[in-house]
Amino acid sequence: MSSPAPRPRRRTEGRADAPRASLTPDSWIDAATEVLVDRGIDHVRVDVLATQLGVTRGSFYWHFRDREDLLRRVLQAWRERATEQLTARLEQAATDPREQLRDVISLPVRGRAAARAARIELAIRAWARRDAMARQAVDEADASRIGYVAQVFSALGFPIAEARARAFLLYAYVVGESLMAGQGGAAQREARSRFVERLLQQPLAP
Amino acid sequence: MSSPAPRPRRRTEGRADAPRASLTPDSWIDAATEVLVDRGIDHVRVDVLATQLGVTRGSFYWHFRDREDLLRRVLQAWRERATEQLTARLEQAATDPREQLRDVISLPVRGRAAARAARIELAIRAWARRDAMARQAVDEADASRIGYVAQVFSALGFPIAEARARAFLLYAYVVGESLMAGQGGAAQREARSRFVERLLQQPLAP
Repeated sequence: MSSPAPRPRRRTEGRADAPRASLTPDSWIDAATEVLVDRGIDHVRVDVLATQLGVTRGSFYWHFRDREDLLRRVLQAWRERATEQLTARLEQAATDPREQLRDVISLPVRGRAAARAARIELAIRAWARRDAMARQAVDEADASRIGYVAQVFSALGFPIAEARARAFLLYAYVVGESLMAGQGGAAQREARSRFVERLLQQPLAP
Repeated sequence: MSSPAPRPRRRTEGRADAPRASLTPDSWIDAATEVLVDRGIDHVRVDVLATQLGVTRGSFYWHFRDREDLLRRVLQAWRERATEQLTARLEQAATDPREQLRDVISLPVRGRAAARAARIELAIRAWARRDAMARQAVDEADASRIGYVAQVFSALGFPIAEARARAFLLYAYVVGESLMAGQGGAAQREARSRFVERLLQQPLAP
């Protein structure tokens, strides 16, 4: 994610509060995301993160107004990465919609980066159960990803409303694979994914 | 859920620790479930629950060995209710499999009891991200519900493996509707559910 410009430094603050050369806003955002995944949102606190990063609490305030500001930017960073992950390939106009569908369907089984992204996403969904700001970020990310998938179904010739229903079902399948990673072995997951790919491209029988 | 037999009372304990006539193990299990939903698993603690129920901490130990014991029974109670919710109707042998499918598909839109059940389930899934005991309970509940739905697809004549893939997709849709309750209005959800019902009964094209 692109970091906003640093806030102006107040000269009155002591040397101990000066930001380490290596610490950027993203360092705090990444640390916060990690604590969120490992321990839950209640543990994402400035003191916990400062200790973990080996800096003073004060240096946090060079980059963020307060905890709320950090949390907002954790969500913003997640949304940008998460939407990007899905849309990067879809936006290459040259690609065939059938290929694009296969791409979306294979998202949950795509190795370690995808597994880490899935863990972050589940942690954010857990947080969204009880927090309006996180809820909104999740709803918007879901809507934007379902929208992209709906475009692919539209490109395949399905009517608008039906393309959206197909997109929702496909997206629920993708989320379900990461939410229910314990269901079936690799071969079963592979067979499921081939089945979903076929069924979802099939027109409704009259 | 059926409560296990009460543990023998130790005569040395004071009167203040005697269980209130109205407090059963289920009172503690329900209170724990409520705190889990509202505040997350870290807040489900004996002292918090005792305060909420207006009794002493000591009275907790009339019913449970320790916090772990309570948590295990929270999961057990959830599994029993959650699986029951899905299977109660399916087990009426007289029912047509098409009716049974419609029933499963309509689960997420079935009013306040279903909404409450969904909130509990999402809280338990959030807990399962970071706890092996909760993870196992969720995996087993998912497997047992997918298994029931697979039986319905088998009854509709689909081959075993394909029936399981269909069941997973349908189940992911049902979970997705509760996880992504913010996607679309009532009319869109209704249209989605009719679409899913039709598509999932359709044989794969050769």
